Amino acid sequence: MERAVRELWAESRDLLGLGSPSPDDTAAAADVPRADMPPTPLAFLRDHVSPGRPLLVSAAGTRHWPAASLWPTASYLTDALRSTAVSLHLTPDGRADALAPHPGRPGSSSRCFASAHVRRVDFPTAVRLIRGSDPVAGVVAYAQQQDDCLRGEYAAVAGDVDAHVPWASEALGCLPEAVNLWIGNAHSVTSFHKDHYDNIYVVVSGEKHFLLLPPTEHHRLYVRDYPAAHYVAEEDAGGEHQLRLKLEMEEPGRIVPWSSVDPCPASPEEMAAQASSFPLYFDGPAPIRCTVRAGEMLYLPSMWFHHVSQSPGPNGLTVAVNYWYDMQFDIKYAYFNFLRSLEIDDCSSGKAGALEGDLEEKND
Amino acid sequence: MERAVRELWAESRDLLGLGSPSPDDTAAAADVPRADMPPTPLAFLRDHVSPGRPLLVSAAGTRHWPAASLWPTASYLTDALRSTAVSLHLTPDGRADALAPHPGRPGSSSRCFASAHVRRVDFPTAVRLIRGSDPVAGVVAYAQQQDDCLRGEYAAVAGDVDAHVPWASEALGCLPEAVNLWIGNAHSVTSFHKDHYDNIYVVVSGEKHFLLLPPTEHHRLYVRDYPAAHYVAEEDAGGEHQLRLKLEMEEPGRIVPWSSVDPCPASPEEMAAQASSFPLYFDGPAPIRCTVRAGEMLYLPSMWFHHVSQSPGPNGLTVAVNYWYDMQFDIKYAYFNFLRSLEIDDCSSGKAGALEGDLEEKND
Repeated sequence: MERAVRELWAESRDLLGLGSPSPDDTAAAADVPRADMPPTPLAFLRDHVSPGRPLLVSAAGTRHWPAASLWPTASYLTDALRSTAVSLHLTPDGRADALAPHPGRPGSSSRCFASAHVRRVDFPTAVRLIRGSDPVAGVVAYAQQQDDCLRGEYAAVAGDVDAHVPWASEALGCLPEAVNLWIGNAHSVTSFHKDHYDNIYVVVSGEKHFLLLPPTEHHRLYVRDYPAAHYVAEEDAGGEHQLRLKLEMEEPGRIVPWSSVDPCPASPEEMAAQASSFPLYFDGPAPIRCTVRAGEMLYLPSMWFHHVSQSPGPNGLTVAVNYWYDMQFDIKYAYFNFLRSLEIDDCSSGKAGALEGDLEEKND
Repeated sequence: MERAVRELWAESRDLLGLGSPSPDDTAAAADVPRADMPPTPLAFLRDHVSPGRPLLVSAAGTRHWPAASLWPTASYLTDALRSTAVSLHLTPDGRADALAPHPGRPGSSSRCFASAHVRRVDFPTAVRLIRGSDPVAGVVAYAQQQDDCLRGEYAAVAGDVDAHVPWASEALGCLPEAVNLWIGNAHSVTSFHKDHYDNIYVVVSGEKHFLLLPPTEHHRLYVRDYPAAHYVAEEDAGGEHQLRLKLEMEEPGRIVPWSSVDPCPASPEEMAAQASSFPLYFDGPAPIRCTVRAGEMLYLPSMWFHHVSQSPGPNGLTVAVNYWYDMQFDIKYAYFNFLRSLEIDDCSSGKAGALEGDLEEKND
């Protein structure tokens, strides 16, 4: 089974044009295809949506957006949203919707799925907290409300970008289900996950760095069931108005299937533990790397696994907008579910690894 | 494994909209989607090519073809092709490119892959032989040369049909790789197989009856390796100039992977043997049935298994044209190859069946 699955990985990358660019360097992956101009709807559908192949479109595609010139200036957004309350996601380390040590099992290797503490603050305060975010200070703030927030909380500036992506809407035959705004700094990281949407991700300021794996590489992510937790805030009674975040398990309990893999562990020890626990990820083909620069748009096909980190622009912020389009549940989705239902022997070979607590949850 | 594969069958049919139309009748399949008018290229690509979903387009799509009115009349084609030599495929039973008893192993259940005897005759003779085809007489003739023959041997009448299918060409971004003409009578049957092409199949006279299985149902076809054979003609030395066809193994030997399943066996005994040898086919979901009538076009997605029988029109002939477009080898193809590489335990459970000779060839 493992051999057949590894052949699937290699063949799907080859057919996507994303295999190793050189036979001497099987640890590398080819770049995501780039287009200088937005594609026609037909070419987009035929060459990207149908085969499930990502596409990076140059900044020519968003040059006409007022946001392209307005948002990177420091004061425009804080002026436009001066009295707007927005949802700010707070974590101690910049890792919202990610695995964290289980708070009820200190000293063990058990992990839980940790969601951010969400607080409504006025936008200028949000920007100040995002800019000052630092794990050393114990709080990292990320404006990443994923509920169509650009057309909700941020409606006052929604007109600065296209209401939808015309070539994508025509190709997909629908308008976006959600348009979200994302504002963070270098300390916010999004862990590996997939979405049931076709995604057009546009960076307006700064850069986003994607690690990508096609859906055929599902087993490499070691998706397991984790108990859900969320951060809660404790106001420090001391001199300064200092926020302290504490992780609490959700009550009633809730289980979230999530990838066990952290591709960028903070320490050599953690890296060694990850590599021994999740060999299909660390010994397999390199993830496809894609940096999206200001003005560029990444088409991320539905069901692709992605891990996202970011670099701020001159304004100290990474600002991005994404358009989620309903995906088509078709034969590719049936094949994915079939693949997911199969067990690879090697998936359990990591049981001797340092993160065995995770793997015991496999059959929860 | 078998359970996971059966779930794949059910889910892919459901997602294609081709599942059982009623929960009380799981042995039935929904009809192929029909369109009164040809689709736009974008809708065709999005709703049919990308998800791999067949489409039947009404006769409105070919009403403008001169062939629609000219070809069904008895004399037009024989006049237009009076002095044209064409390739006629001759078999004793109407089953070209199908399994037949192995001629070198009489009395055993061994089978081989039998190709027709191909003879060049002038077109009026071809039509006379096709109309008079009958297994009782020992010869069934089928004009089914699949080498772009409409633009080759039949170039004199190629202008009677569209040179390509405009909405398909625009959607797929290419012109057809081959355009073929098919002329037969009720005795010619095409056994289950798949093509590495997107296919637009147009009936001009008579009807074609398709049995369809999506590529996800690969295992149900029991594709096995068979040694190749072809029919050779022996002129009868007797009074009449009577053709006798004899099956000979190819030299040097050649192996052809082919479906072991005959969905329409001629006798109850043969049906019992088939059903016991190939339970995944006979006990599984019913094939999707689609009759294509004169003027109608069937879009058959690449990699779909199809079995075709036919009924002649008033002129005693079934006349059809098909357009083969190069398929896109994408992630669906990688998933198919992965699926094909897996063995279902149940595939070997038929070893006790009457056709065990076939199944022993499984690992050839």
